[in-house]
This record gives sequence, structure tokens and C-alpha cells, in this order.
Amino acid sequence: MPATLRIAMAQFDYPVGDVAGNTRRIIEQIAIARDEYGADVVLFPELALSGYPPEDLLMRPSFLADCHRALAQVAQAATGIVAVVGWPESAGSVLYNAASVLRDGRIEATYRKRELPNYNVFDERRYFHVDPDGGSCVFEVKGVPVGVVICEDLWFAEPLADTARAGAQLVLVPNASPFEHGKHAQRDALLAQRVAETGVALAYLNVVGGQDALVFDGASVVASGNGEISPAAVAFAEQWLVADYDAASRVFSPVLWRDEGDESRDGLAWRAVVRGIADYCGKNGFSKVWVGLSGGIDSAMVLALAVDALGADNVTAVRMPSRYTAGLSNSLAEEQCRALGVRMETVAIEAPFKGYLEALGPLFEGHPVDTTEENLQSRARGAIMMALSNKFGGLLLTTGNKSEYAVGYATIYGDMCGGYAPIKDLYKTEVFALSRWRNTVGGAPVIPPAVIDRPPSAELRENQLDQDSLPPYDVLDAILLRYVDLEQSREEIIAAGFDADTVHRMLRLVRVNEWKRQQAAPGPKVSLRAFGRERRYPISNRYPA
Amino acid sequence: MPATLRIAMAQFDYPVGDVAGNTRRIIEQIAIARDEYGADVVLFPELALSGYPPEDLLMRPSFLADCHRALAQVAQAATGIVAVVGWPESAGSVLYNAASVLRDGRIEATYRKRELPNYNVFDERRYFHVDPDGGSCVFEVKGVPVGVVICEDLWFAEPLADTARAGAQLVLVPNASPFEHGKHAQRDALLAQRVAETGVALAYLNVVGGQDALVFDGASVVASGNGEISPAAVAFAEQWLVADYDAASRVFSPVLWRDEGDESRDGLAWRAVVRGIADYCGKNGFSKVWVGLSGGIDSAMVLALAVDALGADNVTAVRMPSRYTAGLSNSLAEEQCRALGVRMETVAIEAPFKGYLEALGPLFEGHPVDTTEENLQSRARGAIMMALSNKFGGLLLTTGNKSEYAVGYATIYGDMCGGYAPIKDLYKTEVFALSRWRNTVGGAPVIPPAVIDRPPSAELRENQLDQDSLPPYDVLDAILLRYVDLEQSREEIIAAGFDADTVHRMLRLVRVNEWKRQQAAPGPKVSLRAFGRERRYPISNRYPA
Repeated sequence: MPATLRIAMAQFDYPVGDVAGNTRRIIEQIAIARDEYGADVVLFPELALSGYPPEDLLMRPSFLADCHRALAQVAQAATGIVAVVGWPESAGSVLYNAASVLRDGRIEATYRKRELPNYNVFDERRYFHVDPDGGSCVFEVKGVPVGVVICEDLWFAEPLADTARAGAQLVLVPNASPFEHGKHAQRDALLAQRVAETGVALAYLNVVGGQDALVFDGASVVASGNGEISPAAVAFAEQWLVADYDAASRVFSPVLWRDEGDESRDGLAWRAVVRGIADYCGKNGFSKVWVGLSGGIDSAMVLALAVDALGADNVTAVRMPSRYTAGLSNSLAEEQCRALGVRMETVAIEAPFKGYLEALGPLFEGHPVDTTEENLQSRARGAIMMALSNKFGGLLLTTGNKSEYAVGYATIYGDMCGGYAPIKDLYKTEVFALSRWRNTVGGAPVIPPAVIDRPPSAELRENQLDQDSLPPYDVLDAILLRYVDLEQSREEIIAAGFDADTVHRMLRLVRVNEWKRQQAAPGPKVSLRAFGRERRYPISNRYPA
Repeated sequence: MPATLRIAMAQFDYPVGDVAGNTRRIIEQIAIARDEYGADVVLFPELALSGYPPEDLLMRPSFLADCHRALAQVAQAATGIVAVVGWPESAGSVLYNAASVLRDGRIEATYRKRELPNYNVFDERRYFHVDPDGGSCVFEVKGVPVGVVICEDLWFAEPLADTARAGAQLVLVPNASPFEHGKHAQRDALLAQRVAETGVALAYLNVVGGQDALVFDGASVVASGNGEISPAAVAFAEQWLVADYDAASRVFSPVLWRDEGDESRDGLAWRAVVRGIADYCGKNGFSKVWVGLSGGIDSAMVLALAVDALGADNVTAVRMPSRYTAGLSNSLAEEQCRALGVRMETVAIEAPFKGYLEALGPLFEGHPVDTTEENLQSRARGAIMMALSNKFGGLLLTTGNKSEYAVGYATIYGDMCGGYAPIKDLYKTEVFALSRWRNTVGGAPVIPPAVIDRPPSAELRENQLDQDSLPPYDVLDAILLRYVDLEQSREEIIAAGFDADTVHRMLRLVRVNEWKRQQAAPGPKVSLRAFGRERRYPISNRYPA
């Protein structure tokens, strides 16, 4: 009788560094998979034991030793089921990104990842080795030959082909694959191609959760041997996924499979940021956040995101009006807080701003007012927000968007103050679009339409508008997308029809503001080229384009 | 008649991204080597054409195309001499860290680096490939077989052994090797070992100059085939090095070789930081700097370093007294400025500080004074320094040391404000030692001895001393060195005799302050494990030790 295998996939969050906690969690989950779901095999994500990416924790001998001990402990719990667990395996002075097959209380086999990504946000060759003698890893469950490959391995043909050649008809694929726009479609196309090449069925499990500048989206899938791919499991949500695999047909049937998430581009991006905020707070001991609310769209959207992430009770908005703040800004901020049920405080910046002008008066006398005085207002606001965070606890969210970070249109040590930057990887035009989208789902608008419609202004001098010193945002963002995300040259951008002077001016701004970006708070990657660990530019840089 | 080869080594700075400038410089230098020094061979450093490390500039197709064109241009200039020039060689979609042999106006041969460092500060596997068909590169000059290997290649036996097997008796080694404590001795031992293994003579050229968080020290050497190693050329100084190589004896004789630099640990560290400041300023368009001068040792040492780097005329010190500033602090600051001939300004922080207390008064009422008010003073100072920089130009140097950055005993957006952090990789005990050392060289003390001798205080409340909340610095730094630099575990540190409670407390502080370090300005690496690109820790991190 051909076998049916029940596969349980643990689409959960395994926090980085939490070896003790992840060990407990995995041991409990092995029991749940066996006892509650009757699974034959339970699959955990890539490096579940250590969390992903552990970065330079992997340089700590004690950390590696702890992981080793932890895996032995987990192995003991793997009875009556086969568990496949990702962990950093140290062997002498060499480290592997491994997944071990645990059965009957012991480590039966270990697969070592063959393709180590070392591009974009990935640095795996900083830590891990490829085992020159390492091949495929195939084991039997109820007579069915099952294989394992890890994440990046699937993006190359050989590891899976070798595993199929070694006899596997079902291959488990633990992943730690961070969210970015459009990845699901790309991933599904890849799975279809690999199945077509090899005829094997694939159980693709991705971890879920925010980790500093990355958000892992889960959205796991199974691909049957006939090429059919399941709908992605709900993204950004922790959950069990259970499917029965029929060895004769190589087809999966869902047993427990929630896939009703909004998979639209906007829906995914919004939830990525929400999950990023929630997990950054959770993992760093914050239950509450502060948001400086200007009456403009960036802070309004961050406020709405924070409420979605943490609930209105855990968010406090602070208005900090100055002599240049429009009455409309104050009333729109108030309107939004009322609509969201968020507590709002008001702290005028006039007193510290005046204090600065007084203190600096003797030195500044005879020098015209310029951006210095604008920055002082922004810095007074930053210091006030930090003082509230220092006095009452809670994390300060900072509200800059990708367009601002790109051209330096944000004040360092001012509105850039804060521990987490939710929208730093969204261009201003995306902020507009996403705000409009959010207002179309789930009842009353959470961002006052008037905030979306008014022309952007920093309100740091009379009648100031962003457009006084920057091109219109649709033009700016189109230039930035080409320059930053697509690595186009100055000449290519101009050839595409953009005004040469504008292009020169904006590219120069991107270049000379690298120092500010390197002092910026982390925020969730959403785009295909996020500032920070994904775009590592020198500050001292004489390349003109 | 056995040949003598005259080798000219260009120990100069080739700024990152300055393809156009580096090309001009290299073409001029080829002519100088040929016409002024009568050299047969001129050697340039690793990736001289692009500067090192170019980081993600290497992702820009236009940058790679520019490098390609530039090398062709340089090749045309290589007539009447053999030039060996490092550059990023793109071949299809693949990139090599290459050094090309240029002769008679064309590219005669190209060596591709075989060992790509991807640890500590290095990320070469993010960019470069190893050519699977790439072997050694040997060419003849006046009948002498000469080879090339690049930097990291020398730290492995095979590349040089292969080059020797291919017939080379003299091997040129272009490097981009950043300064750190104790590297010269380690490097010389390595050279001696390689010469002993192969019998070849080595011409080891290292680039010089500061590049963001790295300072390349030059300190090039030649190693004769008999194992004799020349004294290192003056470190941190741009200069021509010329030596005659006798093919019969495989021995170098210096022709132009300055080696009178102070090679002491303190002397090298001081000059590394001085060069770091000078080059960060030079490469980012700053001729002047600002230093906030507290009357404490950190800012006093940064002031002295800045004067050594840029000259007293280009440095302005700013005293920012508060109600808690001791009279002695004010007078020591004044004394130092007078001694150094530095302009000093005074801006009292009382007015903005009061302004903050007034603005926040209604919200803070009934809550006890705590570190919030201390941070506000520091942030008022940070904003004042930034305002001076904004209004008058010039770079703000920030004065935190490695001990402070480790345990978070520096105020983010306060005294951490600034573009460059000269002493961020020096523990407090090293700051003391280096200050004392600097006062012993070159005439009158540049740091008032009373500044060195008084107990450290942040002066943010009455009678505050660092030692109120931290262990004595010799204890703190010993714990930090073990934990941060040596990756020892909590248990190992306690077993070494440190108080367990103190160790727990300090390790926790290091962990929870990672978010501040990731928002810190860059500063020159001096130690073997610098915060920043050399120690990449997650912020969200539950590993307890």
C-alpha cells in the first residue's frame, strides 16, 4: 500500500539569539505535531534554533556550543515522529548552515547548505562553509524517500537535482527568506521550474517575523509532483501548516492551511511594516511607542501603522507646534488621534527653540537665518520625543520615508531620532498610495483624507513647501528608483527624459547624505534595494554618479 | 650579466570612487617612476584604480565600465616601464579583484586574486569571484621572472607556492591592509615564513590613507630571498619607495626608503587616528572641525588629535557650561586651547535646557528627576554643536570612547552627535595611556595633566562621577576586552576573577546598547575588533552573553 505522509510545517517566529527559548518552543512543537496533528514529519525553518540571521553571534564560541547542546536536547524529544531542524553546526573550526533529521531520540542525518548567499542583505559566507564532501541528504519515512535542501539551494538546479538522483521523491525546504515586493510570484515560478526539472514534490517552509531591518513573511507553500502549487499560507502570521502527501501520486492535500490573507502588493507591504513594528518592539522589550505627529502624511501613516501593530492603547501621539505650524496641521493631528482612539499630547517647541536662539545669539549675530534655524526646530522636537521616551518608557518611532533618506531631506538628530523607522523603505509616492489603500480597508479612514491631499511641508519656516527645494515627488521618486534601486547611471537617467540639472542635483544629494543614512535607525525592508545592509556605500566617495 | 631591477612602489592614497582622479594620478606616477627614478617596474596598491574598499559602488555597471576604460588609458601610458595596477576587472557578469601587468602600451597579463577575505572588516565575496581557471601570473622583466599575488593570497601558502613553481623569483604583492594594533610584526613573520617556503623575494606594497572606519597604514616592506626583511616604510605617510633588486642574490638594496617613523604601539595608534581625521575631512570636503570641550579627557584628547591632523587654525573648541559644570572644567578647557593656540567659543546651555524643562513641565510634573534631564543637557549640547557646524561649515567631531560606546554611557543625539568619532575604538584606559604618551613627545603638553588626573565625570548632575554607575575603568575595560574583543563567555570572564554581578550588569549594558552603536558615527579602527563593520551584532538579540 503506497504511503501517505502527514507533514506539519512550523511557520513561526524563532527570535535571534534565543537558543534557550527556541529549544523549548521546538520541543513543545514537536509534541504538538505528533500528538495533536498526527504528523509523520515536522519541519522547522532555516536556523530555527539560533534564529536568522544570527550575525556575529556566530563568532561566539559559547553561542555555538549552546546551539550544539540545544540540538542534542531537541533530538531527544524527537520520538514517534521525524523532526527536521535548522541550526548552525560547528565542526571543528568550521561552521555549516545545517538542517538535521532527528528520529528515535537521536540525530540521524545532517544536511549542510551548499549555496550560501552573500549578496543583498545576506552575508552567509562571512560565517558558513560549504562542505566539499557534502552531498544530498535522503532518509526514509514510512518507506518514502525524503530529502532536504535549504533556502538558497533551491535557487540553483544542482542541489535539488542531486537530491532527486539520490532517490528523494519529496524534498523539504526550510527557509529564512525576507519579504520584498513581488517575491511570492518569483518564488512560485521557481518552485514550478524545479518540480518540472526533477519531478519531486516540495514542502517549502519560510520563517515568519521581524528581525531589525528584515521581515520574514512565512507565506509557505507546497508544490506537488504534478507541478501544482498550493496558495501561499497567510503571510506574516504564525501558524501550523499541515498537509498530507500521497506518495503514489506525489500530490499534497491540505489538512490545515489558512491562505485567506490579502496578497495584494499594498496589503503585503502594509502588513510587512506592521509586523516589523510589532516584532521590533516585542523583541526589544517595548510594549508602547511614541509618534511625533505633524499633521503631514508620513507621521500620520506611521501612527496608523503603529495602531495596527500594537493597538491604540499602546501608542501616544505628540504634537509639537511651533510659530510656523499651520492651524490645519494641529487640527488634522487631533482629528486623526480621535479617529484612532490614540492619546495625544501637545508640547510646544517655542521655549527650547528660543533658548537655542538666545544661547547662540552672540555667535550668530550678523549671519542670515538659514537651515540652521530649521534644523534647531527639528532637533528640539527630537529631544522632546526622546525625553518622553526616557521619562515614561516606550520606543520612539521615527517617520522618515525613503525619498527623504535618499536626498537628506530629514534632520539628523532631529526628526531622524528614534529606535525604529517603519517607512524608511517606502518612497513618498508609495506612502501616498499605501495611505489611500489603507483607508479603503476596514471601516472608517485611519488617515484623514485632508492629510493625504495637502501639499507636503516641513513647516520649518513661513509658507515652506517640500516642492520649493525638491522636484515633484513623482519625478523625484522616479529618479531615485532608477538611481538607487536599479543602479542606473546619470546618463541613463537623463536619457530616459529627466531634466539634466535636476538629475545632477538629486544624485549629488543622495551621495552627500550617505553619512546621515549610516546613522539612521533600522526599518523594515520592503523594496528590492533597501538602504542599510542591502546598499552599502562608502561615505567618503568621489564617484560622481 | 645577471640583471638588477629597480622597483618603484607607490605608497600613496587612492580615494574610493575617484576613478578619474586615480587614473590621472597613476599615469603621472608611472612617468615619475620611469623618468625620475629610472625604475624598471612600478607597483601600485590593490584596487588602486577604484580605491579600497569600493563597497557597493561595485554594483554599479557604470562604475565598472569606467574602471575598464580607465585601465585601458593607464595601459597606454605604460611605455618604457612595466606597471602593475590593481583594479576591479569585470568579465561578463563576474567580477575579479585583479592586478594587471601593463607594458608597451597594452595589458600584457592580468592576475586574479585567489583568496577573498570575507571576515572582520572584509566583504570581498560579496563582490568578487575566484577564477576557477585562474592560476599564477609570471612575466619577465630584463630576463627576470616576476610574479604577482594580491594581499590575502599571501596569508595562504598555495598562491605564492604556485607562483614560485611557475618560475617567479621575485613576487610583487599589492595590498589594501587596514591598520590594527600589532599587525606589522605579524605581517613580517608571515613574509619571513613565505620566503623560507619558496625562496622568492617579495615586494610588499600597502596603500595609505583613511577611508571611513578604516585607516590604511602603508608601512610597506621588501623581503629579500635570503629572508632579510627591510624596516617598514614610514607608516601613514604617502611616499615613493624605490629599491634595487639583484637577481643573482635575490637581495634588495634601498634607493629611496624612509623608515624613521615611530613604530611604537602608542605612536602608531596616535598617527592612525590623526590620519583618519585628516582623510575623513579631506575626502568629505571639510577643512575645519568643531570639538565640544568639556574639561574631561576624551574631548581634550580629540582636540589634540584634531590639531595634529588639521592644524590649530582649523579647529574650534566650544565650551558649553551648565549649572553642573565645575569651575575647573572651564579653566582646564581654556588652558588647553591657549596651549594649543585653538580658538575657543563658549555657549551656555542653560537657556535651551530651561526651555526644555518649561516645555515638558506640564507632562513631567510629579515625576522625579532622572537621566531624562541629564540627556536633555547632552542633547542641548549636541544641537548647539550641530548648529555651529550648520551655520559656519566644518565637521563636528564626536568624542566618545570605546568603553562608552560599549556600555551606552554616551547620549545618543547628544554627545554622540557628529560626523566622525576619532577615539571610538580606544577604551578609556587607552585614552589615558595615549594622552600621557602624547604629552611626552614634541614639546609642551598638549593635554593639561590636570585633565588626565581628575576623576572622570559627565557633569550632568551635582557631584556626578562615572564611577558612581560604572566599575573602575581598569576593571570595566578588562571585562569589555574579554567580552567584545576576545568573544569570551560570561562564565569565562567570571572564572577569570571578575565580580559576577558586575559582569552580568556590564554584559547586559553592552547588549542593550547595540541600537545606539548602530546609529553612531564612523571612527578609525585601531583594535582587533572594532564596533561597526567588524562586529555586526543584531539589535534584537535574546542571547544573554
